[in-house]
Amino acid sequence: MRATVMYGAGDVRVENVPDARLEEPTDALLVVTRSCICGSDLWPYKSMEPTEEGRRMGHEFIGRVEAVGSEVRTVKPGDLVVAPFAWSDGTCVFCREGLQTSCLHGGWWGGTEQDGGQGEAVRVPQADGTLVVLPVEEDDALMPSLLTLSDVMGTGWFAADAANVKPGVTVVVVGDGAVGLLGVLSAKQMGAERIIAMSRHESRQKLAREFGATDIVTERGDEGVERIKQLTKGVGADSVLECVGTQESMMQAIRSTRPGGSVGYVGVPHGVELQGEDLFYSHVRLHGGPAPVRRYLPQLIDLVMKNEINPGKVFDLTLPLDQVADGYRAMDERRAIKTLLRP
Amino acid sequence: MRATVMYGAGDVRVENVPDARLEEPTDALLVVTRSCICGSDLWPYKSMEPTEEGRRMGHEFIGRVEAVGSEVRTVKPGDLVVAPFAWSDGTCVFCREGLQTSCLHGGWWGGTEQDGGQGEAVRVPQADGTLVVLPVEEDDALMPSLLTLSDVMGTGWFAADAANVKPGVTVVVVGDGAVGLLGVLSAKQMGAERIIAMSRHESRQKLAREFGATDIVTERGDEGVERIKQLTKGVGADSVLECVGTQESMMQAIRSTRPGGSVGYVGVPHGVELQGEDLFYSHVRLHGGPAPVRRYLPQLIDLVMKNEINPGKVFDLTLPLDQVADGYRAMDERRAIKTLLRP
Repeated sequence: MRATVMYGAGDVRVENVPDARLEEPTDALLVVTRSCICGSDLWPYKSMEPTEEGRRMGHEFIGRVEAVGSEVRTVKPGDLVVAPFAWSDGTCVFCREGLQTSCLHGGWWGGTEQDGGQGEAVRVPQADGTLVVLPVEEDDALMPSLLTLSDVMGTGWFAADAANVKPGVTVVVVGDGAVGLLGVLSAKQMGAERIIAMSRHESRQKLAREFGATDIVTERGDEGVERIKQLTKGVGADSVLECVGTQESMMQAIRSTRPGGSVGYVGVPHGVELQGEDLFYSHVRLHGGPAPVRRYLPQLIDLVMKNEINPGKVFDLTLPLDQVADGYRAMDERRAIKTLLRP
Repeated sequence: MRATVMYGAGDVRVENVPDARLEEPTDALLVVTRSCICGSDLWPYKSMEPTEEGRRMGHEFIGRVEAVGSEVRTVKPGDLVVAPFAWSDGTCVFCREGLQTSCLHGGWWGGTEQDGGQGEAVRVPQADGTLVVLPVEEDDALMPSLLTLSDVMGTGWFAADAANVKPGVTVVVVGDGAVGLLGVLSAKQMGAERIIAMSRHESRQKLAREFGATDIVTERGDEGVERIKQLTKGVGADSVLECVGTQESMMQAIRSTRPGGSVGYVGVPHGVELQGEDLFYSHVRLHGGPAPVRRYLPQLIDLVMKNEINPGKVFDLTLPLDQVADGYRAMDERRAIKTLLRP
């Protein structure tokens, strides 16, 4: 089968790889119908050391079930399903609490051991705990929105959840990538009164406003913090969503939060170091990590089906799988917010 | 008047200083009847650079109101009152939310500008927002317990609160100083089912058990984490109280917490650096800072008066003010848990 392999920074190829197949009785085999490129895929795209082995890419996908192992009960061949960006057994202590990204028997797509989503097919471990059946056909107009539920929409939702967004609060969103934009959408859904998006890109500002942002702040660093304070009676925001993962964005988030407020951070941290003393005197609550998007799937599918949210708008480039490298390049150069891949 | 002044590491003296006096219409003037030495006073005692100016010490005290400014309404001369370790106006946005240690017009005792508690008298700014009248006489047997409410008991309580302690949970307490021990007591009061105290000192282990610890762990570092995992079905504790403030204790706390669990940290961080990536994948909630003990005073006074808690047991040394240096030494050498000072 064909699949995306990254061999080093900037080196993304579509190649023939061994066909995905059932290995365990709890597996399902999916033929991928839609996948996409994640902002977090850009980290290795910028910095990965060259390897001969290569690394299979992609962790967001929708597919048609082709076959299932003997123990799989909740999906069957022919079902159209969405996969979260991590698999999970659905039965361990953490899964039962809705923290599926800490599943005791979970794991991550791609790399050197597993199939990735940016390919023709995927072996899905722990199919019962992982996959959710979609109530639509393969070419439904809602497909882009449903595809975001595998990661970016659920991740934005978790950021808002972790940042304790509630009706009436003031929210700041740091980061105007797809996750940040969908963090705006999530905060709006959760009833935030004021949503301040930090963005310098016109097209992203526009989408942020469409998703519910009430204010745009273009300043960063000290000036950005100053601007947020001006907009929040001098005290800072109740809830701040950190959707980037750099030292600058994390400090921007913490410093934009009022004492007693909360930072929800979902940008995978790269080189972030927090000084204990700064945190201590900031009196800020900090919660984040890999979003348990599996927890939110049923609720978010429902919101998409009812047309209450339209997160698929973050896709502004659609390419066939064979042109995946162009998709990476466009996102890396910030010409595209997010790239959708068709088989 | 006489008061404690620190001139450098290990150099604590009782000296004549200018008499405390009313300066603002919102001030009260207190004659101190009981004060004490805090574990956090040991930080400068260990490391303070020598200065000629000196630094007034003490932030935990009970006193008799001697005089009040013209705008003070809630306390009057003759009242016996307890002061929290920070003053606050009681009316700002943060005070109204119970986060008095972020008060917009608050401040801290001692240093070079303010009176400290380890002296004969104190000028109390923002008296109405700060002081709470005690329903007992000056020599009541409950005095040691009431004195702990000015800091250590409220700080232990906040640690448990910030760590989200609820009925039935498993708690780990890192640190066996007075705050850690009262963190154990707080967790017990909040209904924790299992309370694991990390301690290597027999007398402190004993008090921890008396306050409600169900298990004692003497190991530290990797071994300490391993031991906690063994005691918690391999997953870690729901709530962890960090009551020290070093890199080691903070990492001990984070690594002892289950995914989705919470760390409440109240040890003033000294040189603590957190790696964003560690935090991210730990899926731990982090909250801490200077405890808003003013928030808890009415409730905790009530618990002490009803004899439901007896936090005064942390005092195992009582000295007259003139011997305060001996008190510092005893605590620094860990011969005493906490030193109470009489005038």
